[in-house]
Amino acid sequence: MTVQKFPVVIIGAGFGGLQAAQSLAQSGKEVLLIDRNNYHTFVPLLYQVATAQLEPEHIIYPARTIVRCDRRRHFLLAEVEQIDFAARTIKTDRAEIEYDFLIIATGSKSQYLGVPGAEEFAFSMRSIAQAVTLRNQILACFEAASIEVNPLRRQQLLTFVIIGGGATGAEVAGAFVELLRSRMRHEYPTLNLREVKLILVQSGDCLLSELPPKLGIYTQKYLQKLGVDVRLSTKIDRITPDAVYLQDRQVISTKTVIWTAGVDAAVPDLANDWERGTKNKLRVRPTLQSIEYANVYAIGDAAYVDRAGQTLSGVAPEALQQGVAVARNITRQLRGQLPQPFNYFNKGRLAIIGCHAGVGQIQGWKFTGFLAWIMWLGVHLVYLPGYRNRLFVLLTWLQTYLLGDRVVRSILPFSNRVDARSKSVVNQKIRVGTSE
Amino acid sequence: MTVQKFPVVIIGAGFGGLQAAQSLAQSGKEVLLIDRNNYHTFVPLLYQVATAQLEPEHIIYPARTIVRCDRRRHFLLAEVEQIDFAARTIKTDRAEIEYDFLIIATGSKSQYLGVPGAEEFAFSMRSIAQAVTLRNQILACFEAASIEVNPLRRQQLLTFVIIGGGATGAEVAGAFVELLRSRMRHEYPTLNLREVKLILVQSGDCLLSELPPKLGIYTQKYLQKLGVDVRLSTKIDRITPDAVYLQDRQVISTKTVIWTAGVDAAVPDLANDWERGTKNKLRVRPTLQSIEYANVYAIGDAAYVDRAGQTLSGVAPEALQQGVAVARNITRQLRGQLPQPFNYFNKGRLAIIGCHAGVGQIQGWKFTGFLAWIMWLGVHLVYLPGYRNRLFVLLTWLQTYLLGDRVVRSILPFSNRVDARSKSVVNQKIRVGTSE
Repeated sequence: MTVQKFPVVIIGAGFGGLQAAQSLAQSGKEVLLIDRNNYHTFVPLLYQVATAQLEPEHIIYPARTIVRCDRRRHFLLAEVEQIDFAARTIKTDRAEIEYDFLIIATGSKSQYLGVPGAEEFAFSMRSIAQAVTLRNQILACFEAASIEVNPLRRQQLLTFVIIGGGATGAEVAGAFVELLRSRMRHEYPTLNLREVKLILVQSGDCLLSELPPKLGIYTQKYLQKLGVDVRLSTKIDRITPDAVYLQDRQVISTKTVIWTAGVDAAVPDLANDWERGTKNKLRVRPTLQSIEYANVYAIGDAAYVDRAGQTLSGVAPEALQQGVAVARNITRQLRGQLPQPFNYFNKGRLAIIGCHAGVGQIQGWKFTGFLAWIMWLGVHLVYLPGYRNRLFVLLTWLQTYLLGDRVVRSILPFSNRVDARSKSVVNQKIRVGTSE
Repeated sequence: MTVQKFPVVIIGAGFGGLQAAQSLAQSGKEVLLIDRNNYHTFVPLLYQVATAQLEPEHIIYPARTIVRCDRRRHFLLAEVEQIDFAARTIKTDRAEIEYDFLIIATGSKSQYLGVPGAEEFAFSMRSIAQAVTLRNQILACFEAASIEVNPLRRQQLLTFVIIGGGATGAEVAGAFVELLRSRMRHEYPTLNLREVKLILVQSGDCLLSELPPKLGIYTQKYLQKLGVDVRLSTKIDRITPDAVYLQDRQVISTKTVIWTAGVDAAVPDLANDWERGTKNKLRVRPTLQSIEYANVYAIGDAAYVDRAGQTLSGVAPEALQQGVAVARNITRQLRGQLPQPFNYFNKGRLAIIGCHAGVGQIQGWKFTGFLAWIMWLGVHLVYLPGYRNRLFVLLTWLQTYLLGDRVVRSILPFSNRVDARSKSVVNQKIRVGTSE
């Protein structure tokens, strides 16, 4: 086990961590970025991987390439085991790291809200492996249904229940309809894809509750027009491998439950106490510093900024802006200046429904339909890392939206954890795992 | 378990099986294609997946799309458990199938030639999962070496041994050198990629023994110029997780042994006897029929055609031509005509070394270098299924060969078998496995 010391260490290669690394590098500091994966995942497009539209490799990008590793910018592929703020050390499965400044940018993970069976039997979409596993499940259901003669079992295989009516739930529902309408339907001659039931279950009384009600109602009507069975004010009692049990005693027979309902902060094991906010987030000062340790910062989904009148909703722009702010604050501290409070500039919100529609709100201006759809695609194409990825995603979108093709439909042997092959000693140590 | 009967059943969606399905469909026969994967794998490009050049999804294509499934062309995603030629039935894990005519096109699998430890500790490249697993291993070795302070252990991590000096061995060696020379080298500031040792071990006294010696010697000299340590007439004693033991008592300390040395026919369990040829292949008549059952055919790597003076070497054109021949013979039998003997038309052989060189032999004309390299790329681009794949592979090659980029470098959680997740009942049944 080697011990190395770095002026600044960042844990997490998500939006916030990468932005912090890039901003700090510009100011000449020596930085170490740690992640359990050797790539960045562009989370907003995971739903398109899960619905057989994009290749998984087109929405990820090598972390070393993004941070332009050199003598001042380092990357460590490792699993963080414990952080000790008093000793200023990070224990990982590969090496022990000491730091002067630390940025915790470890993001979030699915939160199953205490629903029995949810963690065990529902499919999430928080990582590449989970998205491909969900895609495998959807395609395997079509294959199984195509030879299933029992109508009840066939209907069970062709019923897909989406839990959660936020942006992700609406996105998946719309993209799923696109998949069913794609040319793929001709390739299952023994299957009537009109038998497919898509059910979107929302606990509240409106979809997209983080946006104005008008946009939620538009989304609901649009999805209903596409054939999605939208059930508002509906709560889940439990999930089994064969059904979803609702609290109103209804039972939906299904093999596939897609969980988009909630997230919790994903924080590594800490040797010291840290007061938590909602969703288990690390409570930070307005400067994004830990309340006790002035040399430790938390940003993005891992952080809870307690500011009256401003609740952050866990979207990428927040993490990106916090990444810039934390880099500036550390630079200030190194110069002997005081860190400054973080202010979020809300550029607006966009959500995509699919089938050429979206919704959005920018500076109080609300809009719906094709304009929001094309804006969503444009914005995400610009933010996607890597020219190669941008070109390939653009070409795929043209093929999908203009020609109605969906060819990324291979059932690939992904797993949530690489199995411990005796032959791959290195893999075992490096733990090619996913975020959950 | 449903039982269904089809006039023609084909097992295996490789080159031969797909070609047979397409040829039979043109003649109006109802055909069922069975494979354990829902996609075709373009095996000749697997080495480019393993060396971080191509996305795995760009060299595979949905089987249903290729055979243009409709009321006459069916696909079954299933694992064949047993074939009974007397009863004319195929047992699979999904359904029981009856046939009038059967084509066995199940291809080949790695053959470890009795070398202890080879199957357990060496990496093969016969499937998408294996290619990605090898890529993960190579990249994980770089990551581990970049923080390894012990020089012996670092050298072990940076030593890669390729077993087998045929086309695949030469291809991997050349592509590996390209990877080391790519822009990636700048991204490991603590690693000197010149420390990487590539060792190519060949049991015979010449590389590419299936081609004229002149071309083998050219390949050997070219690889040596690239820095590859080519060891001819060298036999392997055993492989452990930490080293390769040669029969001349030398020991090479390494974590990564790449096995390209041999293949065996991959034949499902048969209820009846079938005389075998070399490599466990099914011995067939010159018409490609089984000797005992006139309604059963075997083609491609699974078949052994016993014809003096003509040995088939297991390349794609042979399987493709046999696919056409078998379709024609079944059509003849249905019309009451006799099947005709298969004649292989050898268009020539090409092999790629990488770094802008290849070798080839067409109609007795031998050539080497850039021309053979560009011809190899062109031929494989034409044969790759799917316009989308062709475009994306072409763009990737331009990026790789003109700009020296290699960005397909994510360590992805692929596994050789999908782990039996309790939540994915369908996946368990469908067995999203690989060919070995």
